[in-house]
Amino acid sequence: MIESQMLREIHEQPAAATRTIEALVPMRPEIAALAEGRRHVLFAARGSSDNAGLYGRYLLETYAGRPAAMLAPSVFTHYQATVDLSDTLVVTVSQSGSTQELVETQALVRAQGAATVAITNVADSPLAAEADLALVTQAGPELAVPATKTYLGQTIAMAVLATALSPTPTTLDAELAELPRRIAQVIEAGAGVDEAACALAEAMGPTIVTGRGLLLGTALETALKIEETCLRPVRGYSYADLRHGPIAVVRPGAVAVLVCAQDGPLTGPMTELAGALAERGATVIGIGGDDEFVRACGLHVPAPAAPETLAPIGTIVPAQLVVERLAARLDLDPDSPRGLAKVTQTEADSSSDDRA
Amino acid sequence: MIESQMLREIHEQPAAATRTIEALVPMRPEIAALAEGRRHVLFAARGSSDNAGLYGRYLLETYAGRPAAMLAPSVFTHYQATVDLSDTLVVTVSQSGSTQELVETQALVRAQGAATVAITNVADSPLAAEADLALVTQAGPELAVPATKTYLGQTIAMAVLATALSPTPTTLDAELAELPRRIAQVIEAGAGVDEAACALAEAMGPTIVTGRGLLLGTALETALKIEETCLRPVRGYSYADLRHGPIAVVRPGAVAVLVCAQDGPLTGPMTELAGALAERGATVIGIGGDDEFVRACGLHVPAPAAPETLAPIGTIVPAQLVVERLAARLDLDPDSPRGLAKVTQTEADSSSDDRA
Repeated sequence: MIESQMLREIHEQPAAATRTIEALVPMRPEIAALAEGRRHVLFAARGSSDNAGLYGRYLLETYAGRPAAMLAPSVFTHYQATVDLSDTLVVTVSQSGSTQELVETQALVRAQGAATVAITNVADSPLAAEADLALVTQAGPELAVPATKTYLGQTIAMAVLATALSPTPTTLDAELAELPRRIAQVIEAGAGVDEAACALAEAMGPTIVTGRGLLLGTALETALKIEETCLRPVRGYSYADLRHGPIAVVRPGAVAVLVCAQDGPLTGPMTELAGALAERGATVIGIGGDDEFVRACGLHVPAPAAPETLAPIGTIVPAQLVVERLAARLDLDPDSPRGLAKVTQTEADSSSDDRA
Repeated sequence: MIESQMLREIHEQPAAATRTIEALVPMRPEIAALAEGRRHVLFAARGSSDNAGLYGRYLLETYAGRPAAMLAPSVFTHYQATVDLSDTLVVTVSQSGSTQELVETQALVRAQGAATVAITNVADSPLAAEADLALVTQAGPELAVPATKTYLGQTIAMAVLATALSPTPTTLDAELAELPRRIAQVIEAGAGVDEAACALAEAMGPTIVTGRGLLLGTALETALKIEETCLRPVRGYSYADLRHGPIAVVRPGAVAVLVCAQDGPLTGPMTELAGALAERGATVIGIGGDDEFVRACGLHVPAPAAPETLAPIGTIVPAQLVVERLAARLDLDPDSPRGLAKVTQTEADSSSDDRA
């Protein structure tokens, strides 16, 4: 079997994570200074980067106590809205930093008074050049179309951002420093990956992915990766959205992937959801979680140990391993999914836009 | 054929809309007074109400120039976050007004300094009773499980909210007053409804629904309705999310429903998307739009005439007609989808929560 580029890049993640932590943690004072007097934080991104931003949004509110939300680029790029953002820090996230729509959004929100932070993997990109402050992830060149190590770098940037903006000194640094080693262990062991890929390959009904709170972004990123890499419609749901109706479509033959942290207020509800989905006949694949969660899931893939606040950084890694293996099982090329390019566009007529 | 309760309630919408407009428009000064000194607006809701809130969010930013976003209830209900909301108006939306999660969220954000508005169809509900201001929609009792006239009422409340908070006097009142009559015409004519329901019933591949900007909430509500009423997995995508990868799953046999306004900056991009989806072999069903959009769609269902700012109020109506007819074609009961109740819950252990 020829090793895929995606798998090689998955394996590069511990080193990429270490480099990114070392590069970004020292920038905390600059981040704090830029946000001085600005209470609100908005995240602008697309695709995988948007899923990383969703983690940032929950972390800012729950850890740093800052009102945070997702920005809708079309409000500025298409509606040309006049919205006073003088109390707001806008964080744009783009692997390439050349997403035309986001470069434009950054310029437009700046004109409305926002301070701007760009999170990108390309130091000399327009997004980085035009931001008040650029947090450059150190993933190195990413060649496979599905974002892996650049996404991981973006989630590290979110943790740095939230700890920089927290009113109290962070206690997360020791856990953050441990993460690359723990990620390496999970990649090395590959526990449960084959079984999960097999169950997904043999699904006879709908495939759904769900998570909640800090891990919602991880769930949506897992769904996006299965969908794009394996060319199969996959629903990523928030726990609440799933419970509010669409759970009705879950029946025998369906496969449900649940991502969960090892601690925090949502492991209980997620464990209970795993039971409810199994009762409806779905094959339940759990990623992460605590012992009770593992027991409630039919299949399980362990995630790197981390407190819930940092769990989204490592929990995507076992999901990436499952997706890569699933593509191989379906005889698809994980590196270049049909119809997708590394740099995509939101507008049909724009020359460059970022999917990672 | 026995007429469904859902169809009866669809037909009650022009009268419900008139009553709701008459009840809410005079409350504008109270809304403006409550928001005095509060620049930010957040919407908290679930299910259909969340889709109405998404319209509110875009309208507040694009029409009223207020920073607006969606609130994540778990930040308060589960993480018990401390976030200063003294510059924020929080709008909760719930048909029944008894959604335990939202009643709790409203109390928690109030403790963080937020002013609160409740949009509900039940005047003596806990959500209304505990809000600083209640905007009570006048849909009358809704008996079918799928929300139709209560959803329409919520979208009218969004228009009233945005016009109340706009810095300049509104010019939309004449158009708003015309809407009930135009909605009645579309229901009466039922143009294109059968053909669209037939295409959805015979879909051999994935069903997707998409829209953008002010109409994004309408697209997500259409997707939710098809999914819940017809027990079929349906993806609701934003235009941008679809373009950023998942468009790869669209192939011959797929059915794509596109909702579009008759004017505004997004009819061009939506028309171009209709062409791109047709090129990939999908059957494209357009709802609303202008002449060019209609030409780009294989099938078309007209929406009530309205400027883009108010289009989400009426554009859901043809979608409801299609869903009701689709359920009949699939021999399903549109009034009581399997596994769904009129009042649902987000938490497995909560006694009452709202799906509409």
